[in-house]
Amino acid sequence: MSTEAFEKLRTCLEELPGVGRRSAERMAWKLVRDPDGLLREMISAMQSARETLTSCSRCGSVTSRNADPCRLCSDESRERTVLCVVEEPADIPLIERSGVFRGGYHALMGRISPMRGEGPAELRVRHLLKRVAAEGIREVLLALSTDVEGDATASYLADCLRDRGVKISRLAFGLPVGSGLTYSDPVTVARAIRGRQQV
Amino acid sequence: MSTEAFEKLRTCLEELPGVGRRSAERMAWKLVRDPDGLLREMISAMQSARETLTSCSRCGSVTSRNADPCRLCSDESRERTVLCVVEEPADIPLIERSGVFRGGYHALMGRISPMRGEGPAELRVRHLLKRVAAEGIREVLLALSTDVEGDATASYLADCLRDRGVKISRLAFGLPVGSGLTYSDPVTVARAIRGRQQV
Repeated sequence: MSTEAFEKLRTCLEELPGVGRRSAERMAWKLVRDPDGLLREMISAMQSARETLTSCSRCGSVTSRNADPCRLCSDESRERTVLCVVEEPADIPLIERSGVFRGGYHALMGRISPMRGEGPAELRVRHLLKRVAAEGIREVLLALSTDVEGDATASYLADCLRDRGVKISRLAFGLPVGSGLTYSDPVTVARAIRGRQQV
Repeated sequence: MSTEAFEKLRTCLEELPGVGRRSAERMAWKLVRDPDGLLREMISAMQSARETLTSCSRCGSVTSRNADPCRLCSDESRERTVLCVVEEPADIPLIERSGVFRGGYHALMGRISPMRGEGPAELRVRHLLKRVAAEGIREVLLALSTDVEGDATASYLADCLRDRGVKISRLAFGLPVGSGLTYSDPVTVARAIRGRQQV
């Protein structure tokens, strides 16, 4: 139970986002109980991820080692002058699924979070400014979280971009579709009123 | 993003307990972004788990391949005549931490759950009956969940064990320590009343 290899596995799993001690323990049990099934598959999936994947040198998303820039960044049919800034590469598919955005992406790899000791230096901000200049970007759409840290990151980026002749926009705030006032908090309602649109 | 190796990794991670599509995606991102750190460590932890760990032939818990039965099962200082039946090996450390139980363990590897198509045949019940006979067990303590499936498993085991001259007990139901009536549901309160103890 307190076997060393098991503890090591549990500790590693605890490093994954959203995994606490108890869930890491349950995950480790499930893996160890199935050494020639899930555990073997997991090892091979991780090995092949390690061997074949890398970060896209443009957007920061994941791509094959032999396809950098990634598929989205090298898709000639996309608008090259609009750049959508997201916190994590994982946000990119969420925007893609909406089917509305046809520009390029740039993942910051985090956001400004004094609580977690993450400042602008930890983010891919300098790289963003370089891209804006080098790729002739005309609009930067900030698709950041709608909380205090997202707001702080958005203002910081807006400051950095202000004098570069680029339009800066941010995703609209408002009521989620399929929901209503009943389920919305006052801050969301306030923002929905401020951002009201003529019908 | 929809790179094959990445998708494979995500799918594997989704097999872990409590992990949905979105969290698997976040985990995969975290791993892929750190190929020579967390990803490398995870691979090595899993490989060493696969190479060195096995299930204890008695209790079903995890143990080193060169130490079967496990440490707890071969600890001569423990009471050999009381057996604590748990659903998962992961429950064993939870009971050990209480410091009150000094007997042996037996993990069922699940519980009776018609909803998930798990019947007694999937559990280590026959093995339990064998152990009760072979090891001269006098008391079986059922440390199962306090829900419908746990109840069903407990009655099934009680039926199986009834004619074998063994005392069958179950963990007491009642209010959790440090809590009170305010935070307890009616069923817990009902069971606490029925199981009331003289002071």
